[in-house]
Amino acid sequence: MRATVMHGAGDVRIETVPDARLEEPTDALVAVTRAGICGSDLWPYKAMEPDDAGRRMGHEFIGVVEDVGADVRTVEAGDLVLSPFLWSDGTCVFCREGLHTSCLHGGRYGWDGVDGGQGEAVRVPQADGTLVVLPVGRDDALMASLLTLTDVLATGHHAALSADVGPGKTVAVVGDGAVGLCGVLAARRLGAERIILLGRHPDRIAIANEFGATDVVSERGDEAVERVRELTGGLGAHSALECVGLGEATVTALGIVRPGGSVGRVGVPQEEAIPEGQTTFFDNVRIAGGPAPARAYVDELLPDVLEGRIEPGRVFDRVGRLDDVPDGYRAMNERDAIKVQIEI
Amino acid sequence: MRATVMHGAGDVRIETVPDARLEEPTDALVAVTRAGICGSDLWPYKAMEPDDAGRRMGHEFIGVVEDVGADVRTVEAGDLVLSPFLWSDGTCVFCREGLHTSCLHGGRYGWDGVDGGQGEAVRVPQADGTLVVLPVGRDDALMASLLTLTDVLATGHHAALSADVGPGKTVAVVGDGAVGLCGVLAARRLGAERIILLGRHPDRIAIANEFGATDVVSERGDEAVERVRELTGGLGAHSALECVGLGEATVTALGIVRPGGSVGRVGVPQEEAIPEGQTTFFDNVRIAGGPAPARAYVDELLPDVLEGRIEPGRVFDRVGRLDDVPDGYRAMNERDAIKVQIEI
Repeated sequence: MRATVMHGAGDVRIETVPDARLEEPTDALVAVTRAGICGSDLWPYKAMEPDDAGRRMGHEFIGVVEDVGADVRTVEAGDLVLSPFLWSDGTCVFCREGLHTSCLHGGRYGWDGVDGGQGEAVRVPQADGTLVVLPVGRDDALMASLLTLTDVLATGHHAALSADVGPGKTVAVVGDGAVGLCGVLAARRLGAERIILLGRHPDRIAIANEFGATDVVSERGDEAVERVRELTGGLGAHSALECVGLGEATVTALGIVRPGGSVGRVGVPQEEAIPEGQTTFFDNVRIAGGPAPARAYVDELLPDVLEGRIEPGRVFDRVGRLDDVPDGYRAMNERDAIKVQIEI
Repeated sequence: MRATVMHGAGDVRIETVPDARLEEPTDALVAVTRAGICGSDLWPYKAMEPDDAGRRMGHEFIGVVEDVGADVRTVEAGDLVLSPFLWSDGTCVFCREGLHTSCLHGGRYGWDGVDGGQGEAVRVPQADGTLVVLPVGRDDALMASLLTLTDVLATGHHAALSADVGPGKTVAVVGDGAVGLCGVLAARRLGAERIILLGRHPDRIAIANEFGATDVVSERGDEAVERVRELTGGLGAHSALECVGLGEATVTALGIVRPGGSVGRVGVPQEEAIPEGQTTFFDNVRIAGGPAPARAYVDELLPDVLEGRIEPGRVFDRVGRLDDVPDGYRAMNERDAIKVQIEI
């Protein structure tokens, strides 16, 4: 079968790889119909050391079940399913608490002999715990929005929950990538009164406005902090969503939150230490977040997508086929595209 | 009047200073009857540069109101009152949210022309917002426990709340100082099922056991982390209370918390960055805490003290007079004493 393999920074190839196949009785074999390129895929695209063997890519996908192992009970051949960006058993202590990202028997697509999602098929481990059957056809008009449930919408929602967003709150979102935009949407959905997007790209700002942003701050660094403070009567935002992962964005997020407020961080941190540890202490600022337990959030978010109350699929501004994946990485990396969807 | 003045590391003196007196119509003049030496007083005791003018010390005190300004409504001469370790107006946006430590018109004792608590009298700004009238006599047997409401018990309680302690939870407390011990007591009071104290001093461990500790870990660093993980089935604690403030203790607290758990930090951080920013991200660990809004907590904690359900005053293992304050600092710094109470 054909799949996406990264061989180093800027070097993404579509290659023939061994066919995905069942290995464990808890596996499902899924023929991918849609896949996404994630902002986190760009970290290795920027920095990966050259590697002849390469690394299988992709963790956002929807597909049709082709076969299941003997122990699989909840999905069957022919089902259209989505997978969260991590697989999980659904039964361990962490899954039962809704933290599927820390599943004791879970793992990542593209690692440890498991296929990546940007390819023709995937062996999905722990299929019962992982996969969610979708009650629509494979080419349903909602497909782009459904695909966001695998990662980007769940991540924006997690940022908002981690930052304690709720009715009446003022929320600031750092990052106008697809995650930041979904953070805006999630904040709006959770009842935030005011949503300030920190971003500067007109196409992204337009989507943020559709999603519920009430203010846009285009300054950066200290000037952005000052501007958010001006907009919030000098106090800062109740909730700051850190949707980038770089140190400067983290400093900004920690700087725009008000005393007693919360920062929800979902950008994969590229640095080991969290800055501003003393300021945030004296201000009683809470720092939370991490990888989103997307599997836990599907039950809550799926009805809103199916019934058209939210349209997170708007973050996909480009569609391609499998052969277009390398150019999709380039486009996202160069900010030609917000987020790329692949039809397979 | 006489009061405590610090002139540099290790140099604490009792000196004659200008008499405390009313300056603003919102002030109260309080004759101090009891004061405490705080673990945070030891930071300058260890590190302060020599200073001829010196710095007025103390922020934990109970006393009798001698006079009040024209605008003061809630206390009057003769009232026995306690003050939280910060003064606050009780009416600003942060006070109304219960975060009196970020009061827009508040401040610190010993700074900006306000007296310290380790002296004969204190001008208390914003008296209506700050002071709490105690329904007991000045030499009541509960006085030591009442004095803990000004800071150390409130701080332990804040650590526990910040770490999301609740019924059924496993809690680990880093630090066997008076704050850590109050953290144990607070965790027990909030219903924690298991409370692991990280400490190694027999006298402190004895109090921790009285306060509700179920396990003691005397190892340090990586060995302590390993031991807590052993005690918790490999998972870690739901809640970790960081009651020290040094980098090593923070690393330990962040290392012993389980995925999805919370660290409540109340030790004043001596370093600017928070370590383990990536591990805590991938584990969705929440980091919260800061200075305790003691004023907000008095209403909840005072009845338990008055009715004898908790006896936090056990953390005071030494009593002295004002002239004993310098030796009290020495004793606490050398770990000869857990916490020193001053009768004035």
